[in-house]
Amino acid sequence: MKLRRSSRLVDMTHYLLYHPHQLVPLTFFAERYGSAKSSISEDLAIIKQTFEQQGIGLLRTLPGAAGGVQYVPKMSEAEAKQFIQQLCTSLADPDRLLPGGYLYMTDLLGDTRIVNQIGRLYASAFAHEHIDFVVTVATKGIPLAYAVASFLNVPVVIIRRDSKVTEGSMVSINYVSGSSKRIQTMVLSKRSLKEGANVLIVDDFMKAGGTINGMISLLSEFRANVVGIGVLVESEEAEERLVDEYVSLVKLTSVNVKEKQITVEEGNYFHFVK
Amino acid sequence: MKLRRSSRLVDMTHYLLYHPHQLVPLTFFAERYGSAKSSISEDLAIIKQTFEQQGIGLLRTLPGAAGGVQYVPKMSEAEAKQFIQQLCTSLADPDRLLPGGYLYMTDLLGDTRIVNQIGRLYASAFAHEHIDFVVTVATKGIPLAYAVASFLNVPVVIIRRDSKVTEGSMVSINYVSGSSKRIQTMVLSKRSLKEGANVLIVDDFMKAGGTINGMISLLSEFRANVVGIGVLVESEEAEERLVDEYVSLVKLTSVNVKEKQITVEEGNYFHFVK
Repeated sequence: MKLRRSSRLVDMTHYLLYHPHQLVPLTFFAERYGSAKSSISEDLAIIKQTFEQQGIGLLRTLPGAAGGVQYVPKMSEAEAKQFIQQLCTSLADPDRLLPGGYLYMTDLLGDTRIVNQIGRLYASAFAHEHIDFVVTVATKGIPLAYAVASFLNVPVVIIRRDSKVTEGSMVSINYVSGSSKRIQTMVLSKRSLKEGANVLIVDDFMKAGGTINGMISLLSEFRANVVGIGVLVESEEAEERLVDEYVSLVKLTSVNVKEKQITVEEGNYFHFVK
Repeated sequence: MKLRRSSRLVDMTHYLLYHPHQLVPLTFFAERYGSAKSSISEDLAIIKQTFEQQGIGLLRTLPGAAGGVQYVPKMSEAEAKQFIQQLCTSLADPDRLLPGGYLYMTDLLGDTRIVNQIGRLYASAFAHEHIDFVVTVATKGIPLAYAVASFLNVPVVIIRRDSKVTEGSMVSINYVSGSSKRIQTMVLSKRSLKEGANVLIVDDFMKAGGTINGMISLLSEFRANVVGIGVLVESEEAEERLVDEYVSLVKLTSVNVKEKQITVEEGNYFHFVK
C-alpha cells in the first residue's frame, strides 16, 4: 500500500526496531510502500540521523545488490553510565540484605524495563561480535538472556540443573561450585545447540565463577566457541576467580551483615566497551 | 534539542514503542523537542494513523490537564491467525515426538522472535484489563511471561518449585498435579507480590490444569485477583479440566506415538478475543 513519507518513517522505525541486526534490502521497503528506492534512501538517512542523535543505535547501510540496511542497537556511554549508577544505588539499599549475607535482587530481575535496559547494554557491548546463541543457566539468568538475545536477534539456549523428559536426550556434566566447593550437575538438551556455534554466556551473578566455568565445560561438549560472558553482578569477595574475561555491570565490593552495609560500584563494563 | 517533524516522528515512535501502556503527557514531547503542543498533536495523529493502518497497535489520546497519549500494543486478527497457524504447523512436526508422547518445544521457546510475538498476542488479548503483575512458574513459562509483561509494561513474578536463600522468606503450598496425581510444592517469595494485586497467569503448557490450579491457590495466599490465564499449548487429552477460563493459542488434540502423528489445532484465542 502506498504510504507518504511521514507514515513511512513511522512504519520503518517500527520495522527496524523489531528486526535488529537483520540486513533488510532496500527493495523490501520500496515494495512495501510502493516507493522509489531513492525515496527510501532519503527516509533511511533521516532515521539514521535520528537514531544516532537520540542514542537509539546505529543504522548501517551496505551498498550493492546484496546490500541493505541494518539496525544495530547501541546505548550511548552517558545513558549506560547513568543506568549502571541507578543499579548501584538500588543494590546498595540495606533492605536487600538477607540472612547469610545474600542480596535480594528478585524485584530488579522482575522489572521488565530494567531487564530490557540490561539487554540493550549487553547487546551494545557485543554488537560487533558474531553471535549465534545466547546461553544461560536456569533460573535467574533467563530473563536477562532473553533480553540480550532479543536485541541481538538470536535464539536463547537454557542449561538446566536437572534433566526433563520434555527436553529429549541430554548432555550432562558435573562441576565443582567455586565458592561452596560442592559437586553440582548441569544438563543441556542435545538438540538445542548446533555444533560449533558462537555463544554469548549471560548470568545474573558471579562469585568465584564456578557456575560459569561449568557452563564453559558443558558448552565445550558441543564444540561451542564462547565469544563473551556477561554477568549483571560480580562479587569481589571471591578468593580466586575461575573465570578471567567477563563483562560485569555492577561489582559488589563488600557486604557487612552486622552493620547492614552493602558497598557496590560500577563493574568493568566501560573497560570492556572502550 | 529542537527536532524537525521527520526526526520527531522517528524518535516519538521509538519512545512510544518502548513505553507501552504508559500515559505520556503531550508536554513531555513538547519539551523534549522544543515544539508547540499543536505540532506534537499533529505528529501523534500521523503516528496513530500509521500504527492502526499497519497493525502495530492503538494510540489512545486522553484530553485534559491529566491527559496525554498512550500506546496500546495490538495484533490484528489477520496477523494473529497467520501466526497461530504457523505455530500449529511447526508443532505438528513428527520430529517433535519424544518417548512417552511428550513434545519437544524448546526450540520454539528459545526463539526470541516467536516468544515476542506470543507476548504481543497475549498483551493484545488482555490490553483492556487492569494488570499489575504477570505471574508464571519456573522454568519454561518464564520467557513467555517476560514477553507478555514487556508489552503490558508491568513486572513479572516467578513462582518456584524450591525455595532459595536469595529469595528471602517464602510462602509455600503443596498441590496435586492434575495428570500424574503426585503431590508437588510451589513457593513464592513474600516480598515479590504485594497484597491484592491484579495478576495475569502465563504458562507454556496445560494438561489437566493442576499446575495452574496450584498457582491460583498460592496466589490466593497473597489475596491476588487472577484477571486472566494464558497458556501457549493446551492438551485435549485431559480427563477432567481443573481450570475453566483460560486463553490458549494452540490445542494439542492427539499424539499417536506408534504412527508418529501429532494433531494440533487453533486454541480458543479467537473465542476470547472476539
